Amino acid sequence: MASRRKSSRKVGLLLVGAGMRGLSLIPFLGRMPDVRIVGVADPIQERCQEFLEAAKQYSAEPIAVAGDFRELLVREDVDAVLATGPWNSHVPVCLAAMRAGKYAATEVGCTNSLEECWRLVNTSEETGMPCMMLENCCYGRKEMMVLNLVKKGMFGELIHAKCGYRHRLCQFLTGQNPHFRLDHNIHRNADLYLTHGVGPVMQWLGINRGNRFLTIRSTASKARGMEAYINTHDVTDKSLKGRRFAMGDVISSTLTCANGETVDIYHCVSLPGPYTRFGRLDGTLGCYSEEKGGVWLEGISEADKYDSLEAMYPRYEHPLWRKFLRSKINVEAFGHGGMDYLVLRAFIEAVQKREQPPIDTYDTATLLALSVLSEESVSLGGQPVTIPDFTCGKWLERKG
Amino acid sequence: MASRRKSSRKVGLLLVGAGMRGLSLIPFLGRMPDVRIVGVADPIQERCQEFLEAAKQYSAEPIAVAGDFRELLVREDVDAVLATGPWNSHVPVCLAAMRAGKYAATEVGCTNSLEECWRLVNTSEETGMPCMMLENCCYGRKEMMVLNLVKKGMFGELIHAKCGYRHRLCQFLTGQNPHFRLDHNIHRNADLYLTHGVGPVMQWLGINRGNRFLTIRSTASKARGMEAYINTHDVTDKSLKGRRFAMGDVISSTLTCANGETVDIYHCVSLPGPYTRFGRLDGTLGCYSEEKGGVWLEGISEADKYDSLEAMYPRYEHPLWRKFLRSKINVEAFGHGGMDYLVLRAFIEAVQKREQPPIDTYDTATLLALSVLSEESVSLGGQPVTIPDFTCGKWLERKG
Repeated sequence: MASRRKSSRKVGLLLVGAGMRGLSLIPFLGRMPDVRIVGVADPIQERCQEFLEAAKQYSAEPIAVAGDFRELLVREDVDAVLATGPWNSHVPVCLAAMRAGKYAATEVGCTNSLEECWRLVNTSEETGMPCMMLENCCYGRKEMMVLNLVKKGMFGELIHAKCGYRHRLCQFLTGQNPHFRLDHNIHRNADLYLTHGVGPVMQWLGINRGNRFLTIRSTASKARGMEAYINTHDVTDKSLKGRRFAMGDVISSTLTCANGETVDIYHCVSLPGPYTRFGRLDGTLGCYSEEKGGVWLEGISEADKYDSLEAMYPRYEHPLWRKFLRSKINVEAFGHGGMDYLVLRAFIEAVQKREQPPIDTYDTATLLALSVLSEESVSLGGQPVTIPDFTCGKWLERKG
Repeated sequence: MASRRKSSRKVGLLLVGAGMRGLSLIPFLGRMPDVRIVGVADPIQERCQEFLEAAKQYSAEPIAVAGDFRELLVREDVDAVLATGPWNSHVPVCLAAMRAGKYAATEVGCTNSLEECWRLVNTSEETGMPCMMLENCCYGRKEMMVLNLVKKGMFGELIHAKCGYRHRLCQFLTGQNPHFRLDHNIHRNADLYLTHGVGPVMQWLGINRGNRFLTIRSTASKARGMEAYINTHDVTDKSLKGRRFAMGDVISSTLTCANGETVDIYHCVSLPGPYTRFGRLDGTLGCYSEEKGGVWLEGISEADKYDSLEAMYPRYEHPLWRKFLRSKINVEAFGHGGMDYLVLRAFIEAVQKREQPPIDTYDTATLLALSVLSEESVSLGGQPVTIPDFTCGKWLERKG
C-alpha cells in the first residue's frame, strides 16, 4: 500500500494549512537539501500566495497551490503530508494522507472525540502508513538530556513527573485575525494543549513501550483571565467584550500509569507571568527540575543543591544533540532553540527509510486523546477517566 | 468557662510530649520573658528529665513533671496546653485542654477520622476555648509577603495556588529511635503532611473567611523510595528490611474552593533531592513562584522575568515581619528562620488577650481533615471527596 519513492529523490512534502505555523516551517524545510515543498493547500488563497512568496527565498522550485488539499494529495511526487492548519483539520488531513499511501505528520493540537483517535490508529494499521505528531518539545535539548539520563538509569526507578504549559495567549487569541483556538477556549473546559509537556514525559516513562497511561483526572479553576484581558485591552473583535469563557484559567490534571508512575499536568494560557513548562522528574536516585534549571543525582550532586543543566551537558548531552551541535547547522536559525529542526528531521528520515517514526501513530493518538479525556473529567467534576490502550496490547511487547 | 488569669502574670504553658519537637521549643519559649513553662508530660520519663535539663539553661523556675498530662492539666497556673507529642496524641490532648478551660495549641500533624476534627470544633464551641495549629509556615517571611501583596490586591483575583512538601525523611524515620511517623507511612496511603503548604495558602485564599474548601482528590504513585533506602542503608530496626510501605512516594492532590480557585498539593518524603515546598500563586494580575524565588506583577515586572523576593522585601514586607526584623530579637536564633517565633507569639498573645487565635479551631479542623480526606480519595482511586464546612455556615459572614 505504501507508495514507492526513489530514494535519491528529495522528500516531497504537501503542507495543508498556510497559516502561521505552516509559514513558520518554510525557513526550516527550506534549509534541508533533501526536502522539497511540492504543494501547499489552504482555503484562503491569500495565505497560499504569502506562502509562495516566503518560499521563494529558499528555492526556485515550483510549489503547487490548491484550495482543497485533496487536489494535490495523489501527486506522485508527494511523499508526505504535514497537517499545519487549524486543530480540527489535523485528523481529517492525516486520515486522507494515509489512505492515499502518504506518510502523515500533524502539528500539535487536540481532538474532540476518542473516535478521531481510533480512526487514526485503525487507518494507520490498515494502510501501513504512520501518523507522527511533530511534538518539538520531545526534541528539546534539556528534555533529551533528561531522556539520556533516564536511559542510563541515573534517576533509578522513575516515580513521578510534572509538566505543563503556562503561556499567556490573550493577545495572540484576540489579535488582528481571531485565532481558531479562541473558539475552543470559549466553549471547552479542558487542557487542550498538553502535548508540549506530556510528549517528553511519555518518552521518559516509555509509554506504549512497556508502559502505558491508565487514567487522567482534570480539575478546572474559574475562568477570569481572558475576560479580564478583554475588558482592559483593545481587541479587534468587539463582540468579545462581556463574552464568557468556559476554559478555566488553570487546568490541573494527573495521569496514572500501568507501571505505577503519576504525572501532574498544568495548563494556563490566560494569566500574566513568565512562560514555563514546569518540567520535573522524580526517581529513586534523583530528580530533574526545569524551574530550578538543574538535576540532582545521588552520589553526584551536593546535598540540597541542583547541578545546573549547563554543568551537566558536557558529560550527559543526548547523542542526537551532541551531533547536532557539532554539525555545521546553525542551530539558532531553527525554531525554538533547535528542537523544530530535530523533530522535522526525525519525520523526514522516517519517510526516507520507510520506517515508523519515533513518535508513532499510537503515541499521536494517545497525546490527542488526553485533551478529550481531560474535558470529560472536568465535566464529571474531576473524576478520573480511563485512557484507552491504542496499541491493543502491543505495548506489553514493544520496547523503548 | 474560660479560666481567668492575672494579666500581669507570665503565660503558663503545659507541654504534652517531650520528644524532639517539644525539646526544640525550649530555646524559643525560654527567650520569651512573658512565658513560663509550668509543666511537661511524657510517658517516657527519660524524655522529661532531658527536657528539664535543657530548660535549666533558660530559667531556674521549677517545671512540674508527669507521665500523664491530666495530672497537671487542672493546675491554676496552666493557661495553655501545647500538644507536642506523637500525631495521634494531638486531638485527645487538645480536647482535654479545652474541657479544662485551657487554651489549646497543637503542633502540625494529621488525623485519622473526620470525627476527630468535629470533636475539636464541637468542644471548642461548647467551652469557648480555641485550638490553634502552630503552623509555622503561615508565618514564613516569603509567605507573609505574598499575603501582604494579596491583601493589597496586587495579584488581582486569585485563581490557583500550588504548595507541597518535599523532604526526604528516610534516615529520620529509620534512625536510632524509630519515629511514630513510620507506622503512618507503612500503613497509610495519603498526604499526611500537607499543612506546611496548605496553611499559608488558606490565608491567601481567605478560607473559612468568605471562602472555603469544597473537594479534594488525591492520587498516589507507587511506593519504592523507603524500600530502596532500607535496602541500601544501615537501619536500626532490621525488621524493616523487605517491609512494604503503603504510602506512595508522591501524592498529588488538588483542592477546589467555593470561590472557584484550585490548589495543587505535592507530598514526597521518601525520594532523594533538595527540599522544597513548591509554593505558587496565580492571579489575574501576577504570580508568585517559590521555585523561581520571585514575584511577577503586571505593570511592575519586566516581561518574562520574576522580581526576586529580595528585591520585593524593602517595599512589600509584611508589617509583622518588618516589626520583627527591626526588633532586638535575634531572628536567626529562632527556628526555621524565625517563623517558629512568630507562630508561638501569635498563640501566646491570643492567650494574653483572651481572643481567638489567627489560626482558629475551624482552620485547625480543616487542615487536619485534609489528611483523612486525602486518604479516602486515594482509596477510591483518585475520586474527588467533599470537605465538610466546619464553620457550619459562619464562613459566609466572617471576613479575613
